[in-house]
Formats: sequence, C-alpha cells, structure tokens
Amino acid sequence: MALRSGAEYRERLRTYSTNVYLLGERIHNVLEHPCLAPVVNSVATTFDPDAVGVSPELAFRVTDAGETINRHNHVFRSADDAVARVHLVRELTRGTGACTHRCVGIDAINALDIVTREVDEARGTEYHERFRAFLRKAAAEDLALTASVTDPKGDRGLRPGQQPDPDLYLHIIDRNERGIVVRGAKAHQGRPMAVDYTLVLPTMGMQAGEEEYAVAFAVANGSPGVTQIVGTGPAEAWRLVGQEEDFGNAAYGTHPGTLVVFEDVLIPWENVFLAGEVEHTARLVELFASYHRMATGGCKAGLCDVIVGAAAQIAEYNGVAKASHIRDKIVEMIRLSETAFSGSIASAVLGRTTPSGNYLPDTLLANVAKLNAAQAVTQSMTLLAEVAGALAATAPAWRDLEAAPQGELLRKYLVGSAQVPCEARLKMFRLVQNLLFGVQGLVALNGGGPPQTQRMAVYAQARLEEKKALARRISGQE
Amino acid sequence: MALRSGAEYRERLRTYSTNVYLLGERIHNVLEHPCLAPVVNSVATTFDPDAVGVSPELAFRVTDAGETINRHNHVFRSADDAVARVHLVRELTRGTGACTHRCVGIDAINALDIVTREVDEARGTEYHERFRAFLRKAAAEDLALTASVTDPKGDRGLRPGQQPDPDLYLHIIDRNERGIVVRGAKAHQGRPMAVDYTLVLPTMGMQAGEEEYAVAFAVANGSPGVTQIVGTGPAEAWRLVGQEEDFGNAAYGTHPGTLVVFEDVLIPWENVFLAGEVEHTARLVELFASYHRMATGGCKAGLCDVIVGAAAQIAEYNGVAKASHIRDKIVEMIRLSETAFSGSIASAVLGRTTPSGNYLPDTLLANVAKLNAAQAVTQSMTLLAEVAGALAATAPAWRDLEAAPQGELLRKYLVGSAQVPCEARLKMFRLVQNLLFGVQGLVALNGGGPPQTQRMAVYAQARLEEKKALARRISGQE
Amino acid sequence: MALRSGAEYRERLRTYSTNVYLLGERIHNVLEHPCLAPVVNSVATTFDPDAVGVSPELAFRVTDAGETINRHNHVFRSADDAVARVHLVRELTRGTGACTHRCVGIDAINALDIVTREVDEARGTEYHERFRAFLRKAAAEDLALTASVTDPKGDRGLRPGQQPDPDLYLHIIDRNERGIVVRGAKAHQGRPMAVDYTLVLPTMGMQAGEEEYAVAFAVANGSPGVTQIVGTGPAEAWRLVGQEEDFGNAAYGTHPGTLVVFEDVLIPWENVFLAGEVEHTARLVELFASYHRMATGGCKAGLCDVIVGAAAQIAEYNGVAKASHIRDKIVEMIRLSETAFSGSIASAVLGRTTPSGNYLPDTLLANVAKLNAAQAVTQSMTLLAEVAGALAATAPAWRDLEAAPQGELLRKYLVGSAQVPCEARLKMFRLVQNLLFGVQGLVALNGGGPPQTQRMAVYAQARLEEKKALARRISGQE
Amino acid sequence: MALRSGAEYRERLRTYSTNVYLLGERIHNVLEHPCLAPVVNSVATTFDPDAVGVSPELAFRVTDAGETINRHNHVFRSADDAVARVHLVRELTRGTGACTHRCVGIDAINALDIVTREVDEARGTEYHERFRAFLRKAAAEDLALTASVTDPKGDRGLRPGQQPDPDLYLHIIDRNERGIVVRGAKAHQGRPMAVDYTLVLPTMGMQAGEEEYAVAFAVANGSPGVTQIVGTGPAEAWRLVGQEEDFGNAAYGTHPGTLVVFEDVLIPWENVFLAGEVEHTARLVELFASYHRMATGGCKAGLCDVIVGAAAQIAEYNGVAKASHIRDKIVEMIRLSETAFSGSIASAVLGRTTPSGNYLPDTLLANVAKLNAAQAVTQSMTLLAEVAGALAATAPAWRDLEAAPQGELLRKYLVGSAQVPCEARLKMFRLVQNLLFGVQGLVALNGGGPPQTQRMAVYAQARLEEKKALARRISGQE
Repeated sequence: MALRSGAEYRERLRTYSTNVYLLGERIHNVLEHPCLAPVVNSVATTFDPDAVGVSPELAFRVTDAGETINRHNHVFRSADDAVARVHLVRELTRGTGACTHRCVGIDAINALDIVTREVDEARGTEYHERFRAFLRKAAAEDLALTASVTDPKGDRGLRPGQQPDPDLYLHIIDRNERGIVVRGAKAHQGRPMAVDYTLVLPTMGMQAGEEEYAVAFAVANGSPGVTQIVGTGPAEAWRLVGQEEDFGNAAYGTHPGTLVVFEDVLIPWENVFLAGEVEHTARLVELFASYHRMATGGCKAGLCDVIVGAAAQIAEYNGVAKASHIRDKIVEMIRLSETAFSGSIASAVLGRTTPSGNYLPDTLLANVAKLNAAQAVTQSMTLLAEVAGALAATAPAWRDLEAAPQGELLRKYLVGSAQVPCEARLKMFRLVQNLLFGVQGLVALNGGGPPQTQRMAVYAQARLEEKKALARRISGQE
Repeated sequence: MALRSGAEYRERLRTYSTNVYLLGERIHNVLEHPCLAPVVNSVATTFDPDAVGVSPELAFRVTDAGETINRHNHVFRSADDAVARVHLVRELTRGTGACTHRCVGIDAINALDIVTREVDEARGTEYHERFRAFLRKAAAEDLALTASVTDPKGDRGLRPGQQPDPDLYLHIIDRNERGIVVRGAKAHQGRPMAVDYTLVLPTMGMQAGEEEYAVAFAVANGSPGVTQIVGTGPAEAWRLVGQEEDFGNAAYGTHPGTLVVFEDVLIPWENVFLAGEVEHTARLVELFASYHRMATGGCKAGLCDVIVGAAAQIAEYNGVAKASHIRDKIVEMIRLSETAFSGSIASAVLGRTTPSGNYLPDTLLANVAKLNAAQAVTQSMTLLAEVAGALAATAPAWRDLEAAPQGELLRKYLVGSAQVPCEARLKMFRLVQNLLFGVQGLVALNGGGPPQTQRMAVYAQARLEEKKALARRISGQE
Repeated sequence: MALRSGAEYRERLRTYSTNVYLLGERIHNVLEHPCLAPVVNSVATTFDPDAVGVSPELAFRVTDAGETINRHNHVFRSADDAVARVHLVRELTRGTGACTHRCVGIDAINALDIVTREVDEARGTEYHERFRAFLRKAAAEDLALTASVTDPKGDRGLRPGQQPDPDLYLHIIDRNERGIVVRGAKAHQGRPMAVDYTLVLPTMGMQAGEEEYAVAFAVANGSPGVTQIVGTGPAEAWRLVGQEEDFGNAAYGTHPGTLVVFEDVLIPWENVFLAGEVEHTARLVELFASYHRMATGGCKAGLCDVIVGAAAQIAEYNGVAKASHIRDKIVEMIRLSETAFSGSIASAVLGRTTPSGNYLPDTLLANVAKLNAAQAVTQSMTLLAEVAGALAATAPAWRDLEAAPQGELLRKYLVGSAQVPCEARLKMFRLVQNLLFGVQGLVALNGGGPPQTQRMAVYAQARLEEKKALARRISGQE
Repeated sequence: MALRSGAEYRERLRTYSTNVYLLGERIHNVLEHPCLAPVVNSVATTFDPDAVGVSPELAFRVTDAGETINRHNHVFRSADDAVARVHLVRELTRGTGACTHRCVGIDAINALDIVTREVDEARGTEYHERFRAFLRKAAAEDLALTASVTDPKGDRGLRPGQQPDPDLYLHIIDRNERGIVVRGAKAHQGRPMAVDYTLVLPTMGMQAGEEEYAVAFAVANGSPGVTQIVGTGPAEAWRLVGQEEDFGNAAYGTHPGTLVVFEDVLIPWENVFLAGEVEHTARLVELFASYHRMATGGCKAGLCDVIVGAAAQIAEYNGVAKASHIRDKIVEMIRLSETAFSGSIASAVLGRTTPSGNYLPDTLLANVAKLNAAQAVTQSMTLLAEVAGALAATAPAWRDLEAAPQGELLRKYLVGSAQVPCEARLKMFRLVQNLLFGVQGLVALNGGGPPQTQRMAVYAQARLEEKKALARRISGQE
C-alpha cells in the first residue's frame, strides 16, 4: 500500500481502453487530447497536491490503522474530517481554478458506507463488507474514484418503468453468477475518462416495482460496453483552434460534460453495492446530496479566490486598483465567497456521528451552503465582467500577436500602464474569459442539483411548527 | 459563589439609585416602567434561561476550577466556547424575540482580558490582575455586565482633542489616589439601567497626545454623576398608550437607546483597566468588534426564527400557508438566517488560541457574518411585511375590541379561517408590528458598527496579493 | 362651478357627521385630531397645490368644455392626461412626504366611466349617464373623492356566499324605490373621514349567483349607518404622546388604516353604478388596478425624493456627504426611484384609447411599475437606515430637550458639525423615523395589491407563445 | 434616392477592399466568413426589416421633405422619433437575438447634428452644412453607418499627449488641402467591416493643448491605411469547428470585437466634422452617450424577449412549464426586461426639443435605463441557466448525432417528452449556449460605458440640493 504519484496515476490511466467520442470522432489518447488533458491534470493534483500549493497534510490522512491514504478515499469519522474536506476542496480549486473532479467520489463513498450497512442490517445482505473490501482496494492501489448519478430521465412526468424506453433510467437487465448486467446511461458526467473507477448510484428514490432500477455499483474505466460521448461547444472548440497562450487556464481549465452509455455491461458481484433494495435508495441519494452540498461552499470559495485574484490583477493592470467602485466590487465578491465557505464549515461542524461511527454534516446548512455557493459564483462572474471590461470579449488571438502586420499593431495599441507587457494583459484577460465563458457558472448553479432542489430541501427541514410556536408564545397567545 | 436567580437579579437592581430620564421625566422605578421593564425581563432570562426554553447546560459553564458560572461572564478558552456562545445567543434571542442585552458584556470581557495582559507586558502595569479580580467578583456575585463604546463624536472630521468641546469624547479629567475622574458620554446604549456594571471602552484607536481619551473601566449602575437619557419615539409611546395585548411582544419587545452622560464620575482604581496607553486602544476596539461581529449571525438567526414563525403563523391564519409564493418567501428567510448563523459558526470554529490561552474568532468571517446578519434581518422584514399584508398596519387597538359599539363590529369582520379567534390574529399581527416598526432593523444594520465598517474590515483582510498571484500563475504567466 | 380652496374643503368637511372611532373612543373633530388632521392637510394640498410647490397648471385641467376642474376628478382622454397624472402624484407626494389620498379616486372614476358604459351597452341599463351626472356634480362642487375596494374576506378559501357570515363581503341586502341597502365592510381604508364621497367597488370578480355582491356606488361622508374604526399602533401613539417637533412630518405624516363598516346603509339610486351585473365585475376590478398601478411609480418616486433628501441632508450634517459609500447609496436610491417613475411614464405613454375616448395605460408595464415602486421604497428605506445611523432609533424627545437637567446635557452632546444646531439634526432624524417606522413601507408593498398579485398579472400578460416562437425560429428550428 | 434592399447592401459591401485579420490570417470575403457573415446578416435586416417581422412603417420614416428614408439615418425631431427608435431597436433585436449594429450610427448622427451647429455658431466654422451634406448623401445612397468612439487609452492615469506613445489616442497628424491625416486606433468595435461608413468621435472631452485629439469624421469602409483586427475566442472558434446546426443562432449570433487601426489615413475635408475645437468635445461625447443609453432598454428588452422565449420553450420541452418556480423565474425575467424598456421609453418621452429643432432624451432616465438594461441581461442569463439545466453545457456536437455508433445512442438517450424530437431540443439548448456563453452579457454590461460611468452620471444629475430642501421643509425646519 502506497500513495501514487501523479505520474503513476497517468501511467495507469494510459492502460485503459476507454471508449470516448468527441466532435464526431473516437479519441484514442485521453491524456493528450487538448479538451481532456486538463481533466487528467486536475485529477493528478490530488496525487501531487504540493504542485498547486496544497499541503500533503491536508490532502492525505493517516487512518486509525496507521496507514496514510488519500483523503479522497477516506470515510468521515468526525467533524474534523468534514472540515478538512472543505478546506481541501477549497485549496485544490484555488490551486487550479478548476474542478478537482474527485469530490463526488468522496460523497458516494460516505453515502455507500452508511447505506450498505443499513441494507445489511435490514435485509441480511452482505453489501457492507463487500464495499469495505472495495475501499481497502481503493486505498491499497490509491485509486482515483468519481461517481455518476444523473439519468437521462426522458419524460419527467413518468416513472422509470413507465417511460416508452425503459432504458432512460439505468437498470439491471440480468443477474448471473458472475454479477449483474446493466443497461442505460448517466448524463452530464465530468470526468469518467480520467478516473480508475466510477461509483454509480440511482438518480432518485425508487419505489416498489422499480427494483431493477435500485442499483449501485463500481465500474472500472475501460469496461466493455461503456461508451462515453463528450459534449462540445465553444469552450472545446477554442481548445482545438487557439494556442496554449490563448486558453487562460491551459493546464486545468476545461470541464467537459459526458454522456456515459452502458450497453449491457457486466458488473462483477464484488463491485455491486445495491441491487433491488428500493426502500434504501431515497436515503442513499439524500446522503450523497448532503455530503456533496456540504462541500460546495469550499469548492466555490476556491474558485472565487481565483475570480477575485483576476479582478484585482486586471484592475491593477488598468491602473484603477484604488478606485472605490473597484474596491467595493472586490469586497462584495469576498463577502459572497466567504459566505459560501462559512456555510460549508458550519455544515461540517454541526453534523453528527452515527452509531456506526460515520459522520454526517448538518443537512439544512449544507443546502443553504449550496444555494450561497451558486450565488457566489454567478454574482462574482458579473462583478468580474464589470471590472475586466471589454477586452475580455475582444482580445485578439495569440496567433495575431505573432503574425505580421497585425502583431506589431497589437503590441503598439494593446498596452496598459507602462510596467505591464501586452502579453501579460492578454493572458489575464484570457483567464477572465475562461472563467466567464466556460461552464463554471452553469456547474455552480446546477451541479449537485439545481437551486430549486435545495430550496425544497430547506423547506422540508425548516421546522416551522417549532417556529410558529415561538411566535405564538412571544405574541402572548399561550 | 452561586448563580443568582432572575428574582435575585431584579432584587439587587432595585437597590441602585439609577438616574434615568424618559420623555421629559425622571423614572423612579426602572423595573416597572413599561418601556424599560422588558429590558429587565430580557436580562433576567440570562439568569433563568429555562424560562424561555434555553438549557442551563448552554447558559452556564463549569470553569477549569470546577465552578459553575454564567457563560456571559466567561472568557473563551476554545472554539467550543465560541461555538457555545453563538448557540446561546441564538437560543436566548429566539426565546424572547428581542435582544439578550448581555452579549456586549462578553465581547468586552474577552477583549479586555487579552489587552490588559498585553499592556502589562509592554508597560509593566498591573491592569490584567486587576481585571481578573473584577472577573472573579463578577463570577462570585453573578453580575450582569454590559459594555459602552460609542462616543457622541461631534464633528467627525476632527480628532477628540480638536473638538470645540473636548468632552465630545469621554476622557479622564483627573487622577487621584482613589481613582480617575471621567467626563463625557456614551451614546445609543441599550440597557445601562438594567445591569450591575457597564464596561466602558474607547470608541476608536487613540493616538499620541490623546492619552486621556485612552480609557477603559467598569462603572457600577447608580454611580454618582452618571445620567441616562432614554431616547423615545413611536415604539415607546405605544407602550404608554396601548394595552399589554397590543404590544406583540409585551414581555421583552423594547430596545431603548440611551445617552449615558458622565459628569465628573470617580472610577476607583480597582475598576480602571486602561488609562493612557494609547498604543493599545486600536487593538482593544478591534478585538471587541471581532468578538461582537462573530456573534451577530447567531443573534439575528434567533430573531429570524421568530420572524419566520410569525410569517408562517399568519399565512396559516389567512389560509394561504400552502401557496407557492408563501413557501418561497419562507425558504428565502431561512436561507438568509441560516446563512448568517453559518457565518458565526465558521468564524467561531476557524479562530485561533493565543499563547495566553484566549480564543479569538476568525475576523474576516466575523465581519462577513455581520454583513449577512444585517441583510438577513432587513430582507426578512420586507418578506414578513409581504406575507402579513395590510392588517399589520391597520390593526385596531385592543381597547376598541373591548368597547361598544365598535368591538362587536371588529369581532364580526376581523375573522380569518373559522378556527382562529379574532384575538389570536390580532396578537400575531401586533408581533409583526413589533418586529417591523420597532428598531430591530436599525439595530441589525448599525449595531456593532454600520455595514461600511465591516466592508472596510473585509477589504483589509482580503489577502489580494495572494489571490493575484494565484490568477497570474493559473493564467500561465509565471 | 368653481375650484374650492383648501379652507373651503375643510369647512365643508366640518359639516359631516362622520362616525369615527380611534383607540376606544369616538372622535368628534376629525380636523383637529392629531392622528387624522394630517390626512386632511394632505387632501387640502390637492386644492392648494402651490402651498407645497406644485403648479396649478399640473393640478388643474381645462376640460374640452372649457371649464377648469381638479385633475383628480377628470377622466383620462389621452396619454398626456395619464402622464400628467404621474407627474402630479409625484409632485404632490414629494411636496408632503406622504400620501395624496385622492389617487384611488381617479382610478375608480376612470374604471367606472368605462365599465358603466359597457354594462349599459350589454344590458340596456343607465349606469353611465348616472355616473356622468355624478362626475358633473363632483366637478361642479369640486368634491374630494376616494375609493374603497378591499373586503374583509374571512376565510380566503371560500367564495362570498359560502362564508359562515355572508357580510364578510359587502353586499346588497335590499333594493327599494329610493335605492339599494348595503351591508358589509371595507378594510384598510386610508382616508374615508377626509373626503366628500367614497366610491365603493367590488373587491374581486364575482360569479353567477353572487349578484348581490356585484355592487358599485358612491357614498357620502357622514351617511347614516357607516362606522369608521381607525387602526392604531406606534405611529398613532406617538402623535398622542410626543410634541409637534417630534413628529418628523407633523403636517402630513400619518397614514391611518380604517375599517369602514356599512350597517344597512341606504344608497340612493343616483349614486348606484353597478347592482348585480356580475359579468362586469372582473373587468371593473382589473381596470381599477391598472390605473392605480400605473400611478404608483410616480407616487413612490415622490416619496423617494424625500427619502433621498433626508439621507443626503443627514450625511451632510454628519460631515460624510462626500464619502464614496454614501454617494453610492444615494445613486442606488435614485436608480430605484427613477426606475419606478420610468415604469409609470412608460405605462402612461404606451396605453391606448378606447372607441369611447377613454385612455387606458399599458397594463403589463403598470404591473411592472408597481413591483418596482414597492422595491424602490423598501430598499431605499434600508439604505436610508444605513446612512442615518443609530440616532434615528435613539433620538430623545423634544420634551427632554426642554427639561432640566437633561436638556442641557443633550444640547452639549448631540451636536454634529459646528454649523448645525442640535435641533435641526433632531428634526431631520425624526423625519427619518417617520419614514422608517411608519407604515409607508407596508403601503408601498401591499397598497394596490401585494406584489404576488402583480406577478400573476405579469405572467398572464407575458405573451409567452410569441416569445417561444421567436426562440424557435432563431434557433433554426422553423 | 431610394431605399436599398438587403441584397443591394451586400452587393456594395462586396466592393470594398476592407483589410481584416482574424486568427492570424487576412479575411478576403467578409460576407462569407462564418464569424463575420452574421454581422452582415444583422445589418441586412435593417434594410429588409420584414424578414425578421419588423414593420417597414417602424423601420423607415417619411421626412418633412416627403422622402422615405431609413430611420437609422434620421435625426430626431420629436419625442415620437425617440420612442420609435426604442421600439425599432427592440423589434430588430428580438427578431435576430443579436445586435442590430446600426444604433451607434443614430447616436453619432444626432450628437454631431447638434454639436456641429454649436461649433459653427461659436467659431464661425462650416461643419454643420458639411455634416448635413453627408447626411443627405447617406439618405440618398441609403448608407449603413456605425460609429467608433473608444480609444485604446494606454495608461489611464495620463492624458493623451502625456502617453509614452502619442498614438494611443487617435489624433490628427497632418492637415493639407485635401483633408486631415489621422493616426491611432479605436478598440472594441463590433461591425466596421459590415457598414458603408463609420463615424469616428473623440473618446472623451479634450482640453486646451489637445487640439489634434479633438477630431470627428466619417471614414469609408475600405479606406487605405485602415486595418481591422478581429478579436477571437471560444465563440469564434465554435463557428470554425461546429456545424450550422450547432450554432444556436446561426444567422445572426456573433458579436466580434475589433481593433481598428488608422495608419496615417487621409480623411477628405467633406467628411471632417470637428478638427481642433476642444471645448466642444465633452458635449459631443455626452450627447452621444445620452442618445445611446436612452436606447439600451429597448435593445436589451428585445434580447430578453428571446431569453424568455428560450427559457419557456425549454421548460416546455422538459415538461416543467407549469412548475411554480419556473413561472416565478419567467415573471422575474419579464419584470427585468420591461423595466429596462420602460426606462428607455420614459427617457425618450420626457426629453426636450432644442431651439434648432433637435430632440434630446432625458439624460438622467437614459442613464438609469442603461443600468437596468445591463442588470436585465445579466440576471436573466442566470435565470435562463437555472431553467435550462446541464444540457446547455453538455450538448453533444451535431456531428456526433450524425456519426456511428454514437448518433444512435444520443437519439436514444437525449429525448425529453415524447412529442419533442431530440434535434429540436438540441437546437434550443444551443441557442441557450449562444446566449449564455457568447459576449452578450459583457456587451450589455460594458457597451455604452461600464455601469460605473452611468452611476457617476446619475449622481451628477441627482439635484440633491432640491431634495435636501424638501426634507428640511417637511421635517419642520424651515
């Protein structure tokens, strides 16, 4: 058992026969593709945290058994674990200005660790030990894990089995001695091509009669029958057309969304963690969501650190850093991001420990944190756009800078204050562009469920009866 | 040494010869005056916490020496103390729908405990031991403490000594063997008539040449030379004109603002904790503000619990509790209040312990929490106003309900859904009125310093250089 | 036919035997009562507009027949009339810092003028000529009119006739040769004691079977059987307890809310404008609301002019007028108020003329204007509270200023910059208090219907099919 | 004199030897280039308005002389002209979902028409007649005009003549009998390659000593010495990589930003409208800005019509159109956009006519309209992102839909409710992407000057003295 380096992680990734399509073509080398390599680079920082300024003490954790493992593969035992995770995701995100790609892995691990135990207790199954064995393997081989939850869903007014096509929700189509066979798809996945295993969970609570949809398992990267189709758009096109200097965040700044299709994929029993126990699915989904939302304030505060840094840097380049309206905007961005961060910390601290020793965050505060995290990013983006100004939209390509006759004209006219070379300004404006015109805003809003989901969760946990009683008593009624 | 009961607290209060004026007249019995009794009632809940549903375990604390003391008189030794204080202020505030009146006492205690030690170390003075003796006395006699900070300030463009009248900032006018003699005033004080001692701190950092303004001390209620003039307005008038049933929050719902004038008041040396050491005043003020702002999210979340309760109750009385726009407003109120609360928890948790064993909150997060706390109250008030509707403005007096012929007409026409008596509705609308038309919104905004103060503090602690470096590295510049 | 002066208006008002109760007692002289006189004063400004700086050219209008009448009694014939009305309400409101009290009269006149004609056309009735006769009388005698719409409503889940008490909606209980007899009540009325006639309209659209609830009429002030019960609270108490110098806006600054009860009141046929024609009620209510909401941006911009003025004046008194955060707040208040105003102007300009020559505002824009008007006031109030600071809550009574010993202390300590006398500051803070702690915020929110009403109207008029078609075409689908 | 068709406009455009660079290469055919053709298409709609549903009555105007000309080339004579322009820009923008590209031309025409007259009156020059001749030619040949204002500016702390490179502000370097010779650049220009002439104005008010920077003129497309370098980024790359079906708004949806460099360009005297009269430059810039900001509410409301349409359409495709939170978001978008529109209408209506017969909008309201227009777009974009959900970020390329094996999988899994083909959904999500990830948000914020510029203008026109006097009088002071 040993921690892997980023290089070792890449090396193993290279051995998988991942089946990925993008812009109409099969991608044969994920690690070198300009749209996908940044995802690999981001995951690699979880192995080499000091490369982006994150301390190994935070990224790795000594288990009770005395082994040092990646914190991304560790089940929370205490508030300290939850707090550390919030710090870790903030540090990694601010180190890359991009997604860490492994946080959903933590969420799935924690949720499965609790629910597999509960299923076993209720049903006499053996999921929990099986899952623990998987976790031991993940620790021993220092695997990079992610999770997949969202099904395509088809007509949202119909239950899974009522859809014209039963595959619109992923389901078991066969069980045999070697394992289960699954069919269906998971949508909007950010990094299945860049991990060792994906933990697959149901997209929502299932009901009696939907047993074959109540399925959770781990699937290895490159498993036969799995096809990944990467969504594309302006951000991806830019990677194919521009040059590295144009990308703003060349190393880490992409966030592809992938449709992962399972065409009759065999999942060996050792990797199956739920298969039919519908009554446990709602809890599994809710726990996953709570762990995830708890962390979003940390993640988005890390992203906002980069947004604030870019705004402050451009203001300085433009010679307006001391203007009161610039200062006000920076204060507001920091208020927004530290608010989101505070929500995650509070959710992490005010949780509770289960009898089995798992640690659960406060779910009301987790949902509030997620709402504030989405707001922090979307509002900070608008403030950044105001501070940055038009060049964020009109920066010429690096290729023009290098070509004649236009390169000379650009260098003559695109200067700011005397100390700042034109090239530095352009790179910073490209970072702004990467932040504003990529999908970060959408991810912040809708990742972990759209805001309406959290609002419903907040209402469900509002304890209104208790509050109404307070009001009645204080008003002199009782 | 023993905890006092609320009755004992009142008994002692009755012995003080407090010199209070209100609406042009001297008030001879603070405990029975309709505008001041609610303040006494609120302070009494800190002695009898279970009367408003707060557990003694939270309100009292066993010290390292094994004594049980009121948490309001305890100096923080750990993050747990800070977190407990946030919980305590939330619980007390939601128990009364009003100010606890003692939180500034905690803030002053913590700040003085640190700064008196620092002054002694730098100057060889003996303030710290003197202050500790005062704290031991406070514990032994279970004293109710508050603090006074804000000076009248006169022309804000002039330093204390430059004012036409040097008394516009409180200062030492004589020192003799018995103590110091002080002159000046403290403005906007909420409860000096309802405590045993007030801790007086400088209003801002003082500079060389302003030594006589660098003064901190404890002053006993009823000390000769101290005059309190209570501000008045609609809220106070209503207490004099209406009946108890009209007040919405009859027991606790006032928040008077008092000008406390010191006309050559002798403060014995044993109660003097700073007298001339200008270079320590800025730190004292800043520490006080940090402790205070850390707690505001707890306090305002407690107030919002009552606001939410009143909104939900009225919606139910009006038969519209299930309307989606009502639910949305309640979710938004809860998002706002739990956001403020989260900020306080995060500030409390992410602080640090000084070498001397004091515990300091995170000041950046404390300031963010205060900004969000102000927003939570002001925005929730507007939402409550929307939910409540016009009767909050047009409720008839209880006296009309009891008079003929109008009482019968009111009972006929002011009914809601069949189950709810007219009287219950009116009382709830009066609570809304107490929340909306009292000074709670102003206190939430400007108590602990107006929002601009916190914004300046946020900017000062923004660590922009660090964030700009992140942006430069990620953009590919370095 | 001649315009009356304010004095003549008062003189006639004095002749009415209005039956008003307040704080448990019958009020025998509306014109001198401290809570009601300000309403009379406000209405008087519509007769003497130049007393508050409003030009007679704006306040009065020459009709097509060449007569000069009060614009408040004139039916719109053109966009110019609608625009003039927006200007007029802004000017009057900024002239008094309070409600003009007659704008609902205009709204009812315009709505009735259209609907009575439509009823006659559909039913062969003679309401329109009857209403025109009433209007001629109003012009000839220069009457002050208002309107009453809101019924008590009881259980909101039940239709009028289903209520346990059928009187919870105002209805006709008898028809005889002299007229109709009505029973019921209208709630939340601001000024029925200060006008010559009130126009009573149904509170909502009525259905078949609810004929006796489909009733509109004019009722003279002092009619037998009408009882007014004025709601009371802090604002009213302050008028009874404080002194004139304490009131902030002594002349105009009250806004009482009154329950008007009709106990079998005879309305002569000449004043009956609808009696049973249920199918026209929805239109009548909708037209009334549209005219009213069209004007709110003008009204609230006028109020915001005073709010901005108070904020700017206090900032100057405190010596901080040039601080960037003060300037920002003032800019934001002006943005908010001019936004509301623009909405009213646009609604007034983009309306349309009916075949009968009436002029209707644009109703979508009218609803948007009302939403923005509510926001302008509530948000400006919070900004004013921030600018003003704590003295708005803690100002001492004028009586204290005049008493010894506290008067001298107040004059010593409550000074600002040298040029400003303490008295001027206190009066300005009292104006702030009148604006913040009165019911202006609630009136702005819920007057003319709560915001949810307007949001529903906006959705109903959103023309989504048209917009979806645009999106489909542009996306290349069709 | 005759109106041209869109085809005739294109034909003439083809004759210009425009010197344009993009992504490192010279573009030889503007009309066919995928990134630039949409701009030409948009301009063409101003010639063929009915092609996008805009009535010729709105787009064209009969002059006092009885000629029908394009409204874009007409100087406002009345409020009706101003209102028509607001309607026209809304209609054209909603017809294309993109910029009309000619509105700055109107602004420059109006500003120059006034200022050239003023210069002549003050200086005895002949600019006005020269400008009128240019306008007659524009009408006679039905020219498409735009304007260029923003200079590169270099170090913003230095005046033009103080810059290390004097060319960082465009200036006259020679005057001879044929005309003036200018050098410098204009930045962030959207459509210089797609018009017949560009009107060039100074970027700010110039001072004595800066005469050669006080220059305004018309420059023909294709003039020797003019180089255009088109900024590029993700949006442009996508046009080069994707297929037409991928673009969301294939016909119109680009908004390139171009640096236009003037290398010693000769401008014949007949096209020179200011050359040295520094004292008139501030007025020229301010007038241009006022006309422009007046129109922004119309423009952005048109864009929001498409945003709302896309949101409503996707909600329908996803089967959630009736959910209350979707309805709320649509209402909020409409509130925002109609608010912006109202501001423009009010500014247009409440302007004034100059003695010379020009019509000026209300400048305070114009600035407020611009602030609200920016807010409408940025906030509606966030709401659209929430409604649309993740597929806006993760839609696969059309090429994948057409390829095997992935095309079949996509068609299987990317279905919504049964009635909607996968292709329709994808196209609508691409429109969302075009709206969200293009530069529309930045253009809305910073086009016509960043919001801070408008806030400063609002403050300058706030008439605070008048408002303070109101507050003092009402408070009883005077």
